[in-house]
Amino acid sequence: MHCATRIRQCFSRTDSRLRGNDKQKMKPVLAVIGLGLIGGSLARALRSADAVAAIHGFDPDDAQCQAAVALGVIDHAAASAAEAVREADVVVLAVPVLRTAEALAAVLPALKPGAVVTDVGSTKQSVLADVQRVCGGTVPPWFVAAHPIAGTEKSGVAASFAELFKGKRLILTPHAAQNAAALETVRALWQMTGARVVQMDAARHDAIFAATSHLPHVLAYSFVELLSQGESSEEIFSNAGGGFRDFTRIASSSPQMWHDIVRANAPEVLGLLTAQIKQLQKMQALIEQQQWADLQALFERARTARERYLADIE
Amino acid sequence: MHCATRIRQCFSRTDSRLRGNDKQKMKPVLAVIGLGLIGGSLARALRSADAVAAIHGFDPDDAQCQAAVALGVIDHAAASAAEAVREADVVVLAVPVLRTAEALAAVLPALKPGAVVTDVGSTKQSVLADVQRVCGGTVPPWFVAAHPIAGTEKSGVAASFAELFKGKRLILTPHAAQNAAALETVRALWQMTGARVVQMDAARHDAIFAATSHLPHVLAYSFVELLSQGESSEEIFSNAGGGFRDFTRIASSSPQMWHDIVRANAPEVLGLLTAQIKQLQKMQALIEQQQWADLQALFERARTARERYLADIE
Repeated sequence: MHCATRIRQCFSRTDSRLRGNDKQKMKPVLAVIGLGLIGGSLARALRSADAVAAIHGFDPDDAQCQAAVALGVIDHAAASAAEAVREADVVVLAVPVLRTAEALAAVLPALKPGAVVTDVGSTKQSVLADVQRVCGGTVPPWFVAAHPIAGTEKSGVAASFAELFKGKRLILTPHAAQNAAALETVRALWQMTGARVVQMDAARHDAIFAATSHLPHVLAYSFVELLSQGESSEEIFSNAGGGFRDFTRIASSSPQMWHDIVRANAPEVLGLLTAQIKQLQKMQALIEQQQWADLQALFERARTARERYLADIE
Repeated sequence: MHCATRIRQCFSRTDSRLRGNDKQKMKPVLAVIGLGLIGGSLARALRSADAVAAIHGFDPDDAQCQAAVALGVIDHAAASAAEAVREADVVVLAVPVLRTAEALAAVLPALKPGAVVTDVGSTKQSVLADVQRVCGGTVPPWFVAAHPIAGTEKSGVAASFAELFKGKRLILTPHAAQNAAALETVRALWQMTGARVVQMDAARHDAIFAATSHLPHVLAYSFVELLSQGESSEEIFSNAGGGFRDFTRIASSSPQMWHDIVRANAPEVLGLLTAQIKQLQKMQALIEQQQWADLQALFERARTARERYLADIE
C-alpha cells in the first residue's frame, strides 16, 4: 500500500476510532514484530494490564516464536511479519535498530487502514530516517518513534517479564508530520505498562543516550576485551568481585543490538568516546605526574555528581 | 617496643597460645583500628560468630567511634589507637591503605606480647613495604597481610553489616618472615565470617586487582567526571537508566580510599590504564572506519569472556 493512501487513512480512521464511545471496542489488536526481551516484555505487560484484545507476533527466529506462544506471551505466532500485522491496530517493531527499515518494509503492504506503527529503538534519528526512506521521503503520521529506558543484559523472549517497564521512562520523539491521535494511542499503551511517558526531540534523545547508555556499553565491552586478552585472563576473571560484576554487567548485552545502536548513532558515540579518551589521558597524566590531590579531587567531584542525581536514576 | 623483641615474643607466645587445650581461653580480644565499612563489618561478623571475647575500637573520627558503640559494633571505643590495642590478641588495621604505616606506628608501642596484627588493604605490596619501613627494615612475623574481596560503594560504620564477607574471598599474602601460627589465627578469624580464604603472592595480588578492581574504579570515576562537565549534565544524569546506575555504582566509593589505592598501586594501574586507552583508541578507529563487523566481533568476544567467568564472580 502506498504511504500517501495510508496517511489519509490514518487521519480518517485513527481519529474516528479514538472518538468511539465504547471503550471495549477500542481495545486494540497488537502485533509485535521481534519477540525478544523488549517485545516480549511489552506483550506480557499489555496482556497483564488487559490493554489489548489479542497479540499476534512474529520473529525471524522460529524458536523465539514458539517460545513466545508456549510462554503465553503472544496468542498467535504468524508465519511472516505481514501476516502478523494484518488484523493489528497497533504494530510494534521490536527489532534491533538497524532492522527497522526491513521490518517496516515487510509489514507496510499488510497494514490495516488506520493502524499505528511504533518502535522501541535506542536511537531515534536513525529510526526516523529509515522510516522516511521506506515510506518514500516522509515520515508518515501514523508512525510513532518510541524508546523505553528499560532492559536487562539478557536477550530473548524467555528473559521477558511484564514488570520490565514499571516506573521506567518511555521516550516519545514526535516528528513533523506526527498524527496526534497516533501519538496518544502509543502513549496510552505504554502508560498501561507502568512506564512514565515523556517527550523529547529525536536529536536531543540521541545525544543524551549516547552519554548515559551507548558510551558506557562501549566502555564496558572494551574493558572486558582488554582483560580477556592477557595471558592471565583466567586468573583475573576468577578473582573478580561485586564491583567488577556490576561494572561489566552491560558487557553481557546483545552484541548485535549494540552493534546496531553504535552504528546508528555513530557520530554521537564517536564524539563522546573521543572525549572519554581525553579524560582518561588526563587521569593518566595525574597518576604519572603524581598529582594525587588533583586525582582525589576528581574522584570527589565524580562521586558528588553521581550522588546528586542518584535519586533520579531508576 | 622494639620490633626484634616483639618478633621473639611472637614466636614464643603465639605458638603456645595456639597449642592451648582450652578452646574458650583461645577466644581472642579483637582491636579494630578504623571503624568504617570493612572494620565495622568484620567486628559485626566476628561478634555474630561468637569468635571474639571482646572488641575494642578506635577511629580518628569521633563520630564513627560513637556510632560504633551505639550500634553495638564494638564493646569499647578507645581514646587512641594505642589504648585500643593494649589488651588485644588480634589487631586489625582497617584504615585507608596509605594510613597503614601511621596506624601501625601508633599501635606498635602498645601491642601485647604475642599479638597478631593484620590489615584489610586493597594493595598488598605497598602495605608490606610500609610495615617493613615502620618496623625498621623487615616485615615482622606477627604481621599478616590480608585483603577481603568485599565491599559496597558505601562508607562508614553505619553502612557495615555482618554478612558482608559471606561467601566472598579473603586473600592472604604471606611474606618471607611470616609466622605460620599468626597466619592461621587470621585465616581462622576470616573463616568465621564466612569468607573463603585463599593465599597469593603479594605482587600477583596487586596485578590481578589492578585489573578487576582498581582500573574499573578509575574508569567509572572518569566516565562520571566526563558526563558532569558538559552544560547538559543535569539533563543527561536525569535520563540515566539501570545500565548507567550499575556501571557507575563504584564511582560512589570513597574518594580517599580510592586515591590511596591508585597511589599505592600506581605502576600497575598506570600500565593497565595505558592499555585501556589503547583499546579504546582501537574501538574509536573501528567506528571511524566503519568496520562494523569487527566492532560486533569485539562485542561478541567480550560478552563470551564475561559469560564464561560469570559463574565464578560472586
